[in-house]
Amino acid sequence: MVINRNRISEIDMETTVLSAHDLSCIVERVSLDVLMDELIAGTTRALADYDPSQCITPTRDGFHYNNERGLGLIEWMPAMRARQQVTIKLVGYHPHNPQRWNVPTILSTVNVFDVATGHLMSIADATFLTAMRTGAASAIASRALAHPDSRNLGLIGVGAQACTQLHALSRIFDIERVLIHDVDAEAMCTFASRVALLELDLPIEATDLGTLLQSADILCTATSVDAGAGPVFVDEPLRRWLHINAVGADFPGKVEIPLQVLRRAFVFPDFLDQALKEGECQQLCAEEIDATLVDVIRNPSAYEAYRESLSVFDSTGWALQDEVAIGLMLAYAEDMGIGQRVALESISPDAKNPYGFLAACRTFTGQPIEA
Amino acid sequence: MVINRNRISEIDMETTVLSAHDLSCIVERVSLDVLMDELIAGTTRALADYDPSQCITPTRDGFHYNNERGLGLIEWMPAMRARQQVTIKLVGYHPHNPQRWNVPTILSTVNVFDVATGHLMSIADATFLTAMRTGAASAIASRALAHPDSRNLGLIGVGAQACTQLHALSRIFDIERVLIHDVDAEAMCTFASRVALLELDLPIEATDLGTLLQSADILCTATSVDAGAGPVFVDEPLRRWLHINAVGADFPGKVEIPLQVLRRAFVFPDFLDQALKEGECQQLCAEEIDATLVDVIRNPSAYEAYRESLSVFDSTGWALQDEVAIGLMLAYAEDMGIGQRVALESISPDAKNPYGFLAACRTFTGQPIEA
Repeated sequence: MVINRNRISEIDMETTVLSAHDLSCIVERVSLDVLMDELIAGTTRALADYDPSQCITPTRDGFHYNNERGLGLIEWMPAMRARQQVTIKLVGYHPHNPQRWNVPTILSTVNVFDVATGHLMSIADATFLTAMRTGAASAIASRALAHPDSRNLGLIGVGAQACTQLHALSRIFDIERVLIHDVDAEAMCTFASRVALLELDLPIEATDLGTLLQSADILCTATSVDAGAGPVFVDEPLRRWLHINAVGADFPGKVEIPLQVLRRAFVFPDFLDQALKEGECQQLCAEEIDATLVDVIRNPSAYEAYRESLSVFDSTGWALQDEVAIGLMLAYAEDMGIGQRVALESISPDAKNPYGFLAACRTFTGQPIEA
Repeated sequence: MVINRNRISEIDMETTVLSAHDLSCIVERVSLDVLMDELIAGTTRALADYDPSQCITPTRDGFHYNNERGLGLIEWMPAMRARQQVTIKLVGYHPHNPQRWNVPTILSTVNVFDVATGHLMSIADATFLTAMRTGAASAIASRALAHPDSRNLGLIGVGAQACTQLHALSRIFDIERVLIHDVDAEAMCTFASRVALLELDLPIEATDLGTLLQSADILCTATSVDAGAGPVFVDEPLRRWLHINAVGADFPGKVEIPLQVLRRAFVFPDFLDQALKEGECQQLCAEEIDATLVDVIRNPSAYEAYRESLSVFDSTGWALQDEVAIGLMLAYAEDMGIGQRVALESISPDAKNPYGFLAACRTFTGQPIEA
């Protein structure tokens, strides 16, 4: 068995680091609108083509805590594309971040591994991508089951995720009016300025919950309501064809939608097992759930009739979406030569010598240098 | 509720990237021997102080595959130090790497998060640290239950992990003779050169399994035997006081030690739940396992008598060890100003604007630039 000691030069063992700045350079050249359109299209394709034997997505797991410093979680969302790559998104949810530190509630990075070697091919910010792909999923679900003439968008909770909900939905629907509500008055005041970049030229109206619920054709809930403190509105008359994107429930005990509304609605989660643990579907049993987003996208004609009645997309966030989002950005990064290449892993000239990489540090002698 | 928009400047939201080169710079200044001594001491303290309510280590999980391209796994090893940090090591095991690509079997990186915000504080190579800490664990287990006068070290499997087994054990015992065996003759030929850096001035003798097993006071098994193909030696006369560090079993179905030897021995794993799934303890039921490494380190006098008889440390690799290892390196990196600081996560000047960070790219206009 002859080891080819030069083989290492034939395969790329560096890691592409895509920082926030790198992502901003990609956005600058591609535009946010084109990126969102591509995410919507790419995610729709991935859903239509979804084969659980080829794309394995265990339910995410993580550390959940609720102590005197407040609620938080850090979790891992893995996905394996068989014979190709493993994508592991690491994500934190700390709802007190904006108020305490002016830091986003959701912070995330994503790691992409080559399954042939286990090599970390890329690590990238996923804070931006998580917000984008969550918007894209709501656009896809709404295109399938909201009324096609939907004009009035209601947003309950207007933090970071609401910005990408509006952005994504505006790419699919001719939104004419945006009604917003948040328990945080300042968030309502600043929402228009936070979406000004999108140049949507839309009236954004801060309003009470009742007005919002009576008027909305599409409703997105994306709040930081505490576990056990939901839902975020009470069951009252809604438009017959209302479509709800329930985005915020992503934590055991956290729900946003009244049970009575779920019971009346056609409910379809992104990822059933996870939705039963963390999403609105926590309030239901598996038998009460009508379909999944994959079912709806695969067979649109079978579900078209539900555009005329109440529907709820239970969006917990699925590793499949992250795989699409990071794949899109990495392809752009490669084309554009964006991203830093780092020899992160210690790879020795001899694979069986864990200390062999030390010689790469030119002056390494094995002995300590006197400071 | 007034948001302090300047608050972001008060907390550090950059990520320290510790590459292979950065680690080599630390080793150059500290020396491998001092690092190994500190790892042994730090891990011993962490084991003695282990409190499962303060250091939460779920059993690792991951993607295991065995297809026409061979056996492999990519897995996550999480640990939470309550109210402080979450450490998530991501690790690949691909036993064909050395022969196919001259790349290490085990490749790994480690992510450290602040539990207050979910911020990724550091990402570092853990390929080097995994090898080091695995050696350190065997040294700790051997100091506890090997015969104190052990002079003859046997190594079955002399790949990368064997180098750090020898290194760590040489820091604790007056090794006089190293007997090695590997099914790969080339690995046996190159072993001495791979540990030359350690300047141990020891005879290293390639030998048959029988001679090795008859002579060893301490035995380390660290092979890439296939799942289902073990054990790697047969039960034959062993020194009465033999202590075995069984390092290689870290995969369902993969074992190195004959069941009869386990049945005669005092068996103690690093992490019981994991060892029952992936370690030598797969061959036993929970009731047959005598103690854990934590028990032995906490109460050494209760176990001292076993130094005179057969003992097996079932080393599957525990996230607690990784937490100690990365903590040590990060402390050195900070002291020495080593490591690259990267604004990896997209943090906007307004935490509730997911697109706000784009303005950091000075020329960002929201419109695509014509290429």
